[in-house]
Amino acid sequence: MWIVPEAAIADLMTEEASFAAVESVFAAMSRGDAVNFPVIREAIGHADALYGFKSGFDRAGLNLGLKSGGYWPGNMDKGLTNHQSSVFLFDADTGQCRAVVGGNLLTALRTAAASAVSIHHLSRADAKVLGMIGAGHQSAFQMRAAVKHRDFEKVIGWNLHPEMLSRLADTAAELGLPFEAVDLDQLGAEADVIISITSSFDPILMDAQVRPGTHIACMGTDTIGKQEVEATLLRRAQVFTDEIAQSVTLGEAQHAIKDGLIRADTISELGAVINGTHPGRTSADDITLFDGTGVGLQDLAVASAALELAIQRGTAIEVDF
Amino acid sequence: MWIVPEAAIADLMTEEASFAAVESVFAAMSRGDAVNFPVIREAIGHADALYGFKSGFDRAGLNLGLKSGGYWPGNMDKGLTNHQSSVFLFDADTGQCRAVVGGNLLTALRTAAASAVSIHHLSRADAKVLGMIGAGHQSAFQMRAAVKHRDFEKVIGWNLHPEMLSRLADTAAELGLPFEAVDLDQLGAEADVIISITSSFDPILMDAQVRPGTHIACMGTDTIGKQEVEATLLRRAQVFTDEIAQSVTLGEAQHAIKDGLIRADTISELGAVINGTHPGRTSADDITLFDGTGVGLQDLAVASAALELAIQRGTAIEVDF
Repeated sequence: MWIVPEAAIADLMTEEASFAAVESVFAAMSRGDAVNFPVIREAIGHADALYGFKSGFDRAGLNLGLKSGGYWPGNMDKGLTNHQSSVFLFDADTGQCRAVVGGNLLTALRTAAASAVSIHHLSRADAKVLGMIGAGHQSAFQMRAAVKHRDFEKVIGWNLHPEMLSRLADTAAELGLPFEAVDLDQLGAEADVIISITSSFDPILMDAQVRPGTHIACMGTDTIGKQEVEATLLRRAQVFTDEIAQSVTLGEAQHAIKDGLIRADTISELGAVINGTHPGRTSADDITLFDGTGVGLQDLAVASAALELAIQRGTAIEVDF
Repeated sequence: MWIVPEAAIADLMTEEASFAAVESVFAAMSRGDAVNFPVIREAIGHADALYGFKSGFDRAGLNLGLKSGGYWPGNMDKGLTNHQSSVFLFDADTGQCRAVVGGNLLTALRTAAASAVSIHHLSRADAKVLGMIGAGHQSAFQMRAAVKHRDFEKVIGWNLHPEMLSRLADTAAELGLPFEAVDLDQLGAEADVIISITSSFDPILMDAQVRPGTHIACMGTDTIGKQEVEATLLRRAQVFTDEIAQSVTLGEAQHAIKDGLIRADTISELGAVINGTHPGRTSADDITLFDGTGVGLQDLAVASAALELAIQRGTAIEVDF
């Protein structure tokens, strides 16, 4: 059995490798070659923690296993990340545990890769302005992954707590891009691509604030009740997602579905666009919206990529198990 | 993170330690201190494998995690056990993966411990004859765990394929007990305690074959459709189980429930007997039946016990994770 410790991931994985892994597994899901199993998520009644599993099997990549962990709100006070996860990869031919891979940084990378894949396949080729909604820990990962796929000239951003916007400014500077803090009207009016990465339970970006031609990646809604954009925006947009079953139940589309604004069969898999079985954006004026809900197969895909790199470079620890 | 390899378990775990761990967690479940999460079980469409998870949290023992693995029917030809599993224990205070423990032998031990706990708490104190139905790999574990809890003088056994009865004879000899192969009429007429451990989809032991005073542990039924005893026997017996929700859906009680012979509220938790909140057997003529369906908390309990022993004895491998 191989062990790839959390601390080894940063030197192993790049935005490019995460992008390739996530793009490939979204394509496999849409071809029916990869399936996510039901998600388990439980409030355990201890330490206010949410604990659970995301799991699946990619027959194409022979990638089987799960990510387990959750949210421990008291961790920060102990000097630990509140979100904790570990990925367990199994040998699809024997059922033996093949590897244990630290899942914290990988989760950030795979979530960022998902919006980057959506930008690569759905945004206008001439997109110049990247709009960021949300300035939490994950926002920096989303921005770093996004900028590799269009020739962005500027980043603009909004956050509920303006004092946190320095994270966006610093990340843009690191990427050699100017940054401007804006209100949501200006963000919608100027951005060609918008990434929303918040934990909001109320819509932040309104339908009327979004102009034709925009691509929006809604990356924060992963739970019943959460919402980042006004539901009517989904009626005006072409809606894509990682997994339709999650999109309509706990993703951004849950509200538009519940309100009868769209039907599940109008939502398309991003994987179909990757595979060329869906045309994706059909005009420069389309609004495309990616509802990134986060699936176990993404975790397995990046963990497997990290494992292969770790084995190649001799940094994976082998344990007789 | 600690690693306890499969090969280390045999030297660490005893029937006594497994009994203590399983008895304790059954008690915690009945007190409401421990809960099993939904079971995931998937035919993955590769290698004819069934793959999944059993998981839970014991707040009393701060035991959080899952067993993952499944059934790979082609493993035998590769020199591997068809049933493969690994247990992952998490720190309930932080969500970090605390240990990876080999789960194959532990699964056998925890299943054997469950019937032993039922015999300890439900069979007549003067039980002398142990009847075994089924002579597969697991039967030896069940017998070894059972004999420690009553002064058995003899083992009698039946198996669909009589050529396999040598396993029961050999195990009884190892335990210093005489063994006799019998038909099911004789088994029911002579046995004070019966352990059924088969993969049957049709009833083997009939209601009329069972005499008053018998304790029966049905340990084989863990799937919709499986059945070891005639359903009317459950109407005549006091029925106990590890987890009522599993008992009525995929355990031995599923058939009596479906046929309207018993109601779910007539089934009691074995943990309630352990805790003293249920009297258990009330007369020497009662038939008691334990429907052992197998829960994730059992796996966590024995894995945690094995981990503590491995740490104490210096055989657990520590990996910086």
